[in-house]
Amino acid sequence: MTAARVLAGYHAVTARLRAAPDSIDAIYVDARRRDGRMQQLQQHAREAGVKLVAADAERLRGLAGDVPHQGVVALAADIEQPLTLDDVLAEVQPGLRSDLLLLALDSITDPRNLGACLRVADAAGVQAVVVPRDRSAGMTPAALKAAAGAAESVPLLTVTNLARALTDIADAGIRVIGAAGEAEASLYDLDLRGPVAWVLGAEGGGLRRLTRERCDELARIPLQGHVESLNVSVATGICLFETLRQRGAAHP
Amino acid sequence: MTAARVLAGYHAVTARLRAAPDSIDAIYVDARRRDGRMQQLQQHAREAGVKLVAADAERLRGLAGDVPHQGVVALAADIEQPLTLDDVLAEVQPGLRSDLLLLALDSITDPRNLGACLRVADAAGVQAVVVPRDRSAGMTPAALKAAAGAAESVPLLTVTNLARALTDIADAGIRVIGAAGEAEASLYDLDLRGPVAWVLGAEGGGLRRLTRERCDELARIPLQGHVESLNVSVATGICLFETLRQRGAAHP
Repeated sequence: MTAARVLAGYHAVTARLRAAPDSIDAIYVDARRRDGRMQQLQQHAREAGVKLVAADAERLRGLAGDVPHQGVVALAADIEQPLTLDDVLAEVQPGLRSDLLLLALDSITDPRNLGACLRVADAAGVQAVVVPRDRSAGMTPAALKAAAGAAESVPLLTVTNLARALTDIADAGIRVIGAAGEAEASLYDLDLRGPVAWVLGAEGGGLRRLTRERCDELARIPLQGHVESLNVSVATGICLFETLRQRGAAHP
Repeated sequence: MTAARVLAGYHAVTARLRAAPDSIDAIYVDARRRDGRMQQLQQHAREAGVKLVAADAERLRGLAGDVPHQGVVALAADIEQPLTLDDVLAEVQPGLRSDLLLLALDSITDPRNLGACLRVADAAGVQAVVVPRDRSAGMTPAALKAAAGAAESVPLLTVTNLARALTDIADAGIRVIGAAGEAEASLYDLDLRGPVAWVLGAEGGGLRRLTRERCDELARIPLQGHVESLNVSVATGICLFETLRQRGAAHP
């Protein structure tokens, strides 16, 4: 049996309802909420045959904990991730897709940051996000909320050893580029066309030494002001969307 | 007398210590924390003649509330913002600086998002951030924490009427560009050189009608995946850093 997940908030519940309604045990809704998107959500649930339970604020808070739930919480099974890194790499070889874009996250232990990174990874069309098993936040309710539905659409691949995974990625012909504040090159100096895996680390510590050594190149986001770093999800957004821009994928 | 501010966390306290040590009443530190940056912070405080108080975890939590404090909390006076929008606009005229970059935030009511936007605004070298008085989060401890010190370095200008402020900005010769998911143009289609004010709205509702009508142009970030929007601080980072890139300011 798979572990139960608590999905809190409109985005997270709607995305799961769209992707895998059968995995939902029940959706708890604030009966006083009668706005358009709540009605739409309830209609989707009824059409999909998912149980709806009217709940008061206290019960919703009890289910969602600290996560803002916007009047809707779902209990669902964990969806089995069918993909492994090997699957992803096998799929892209031998005819490597030039639009391949992967994201690896090193030591992102704040669930909100992990979720926020998944959200921007989805928005940038990333094929998979890779995290190390023992150096990553889990997909807690806070992470799912911050992911705004992306946890249901972007494969999150957990690997035992991130450095080895990066070696596998590089061996598959994908350029591994690490974001590092102390790098000489600005990301705007790099040619980001072709298959790329971006690697981002935690805001304080950055990339671990072994992670950094596995990168083909390092690049920095050129900061102009007084702050010492960017939030990792903001940095991820800047790196991924610059990649799309250079590929022409960012144009309509 | 000015209202007291609670600054929680290493970034927020260090930034204030650097910018205006005299405004700090006292810094409360977890006596068990003996890492390098905590020692450095305490040494700065001693050199600046700021009172240091050893505190236990309970007291720090009592001061910082829900905000993660990393073992350091300061009580400080609100720093008077010497700038108004008129000051900023007067300064840039008549010889309009071509690198002028302003950010206006419409209806960002989550303090963490406001702080995160200030952080990325600082990192992009924005001269001032403009928010409407009755449609913005305040600089709460959560906002200050998310700002990671930027609240001390980027002027936050509160205006009574955002639409009127945007008119004043446009009248000063600054292009006002609104980020809007439904816009036809991608931001990568725009020429962002020259004085620009970006306007970003809340993730759900976007820009209010009056705000949108005051924009010279609207642009969207071209999303590729399933999520419906980006976090506002991520969207802000993408817009501001694309502006820097086009201006050549992003190169070393």
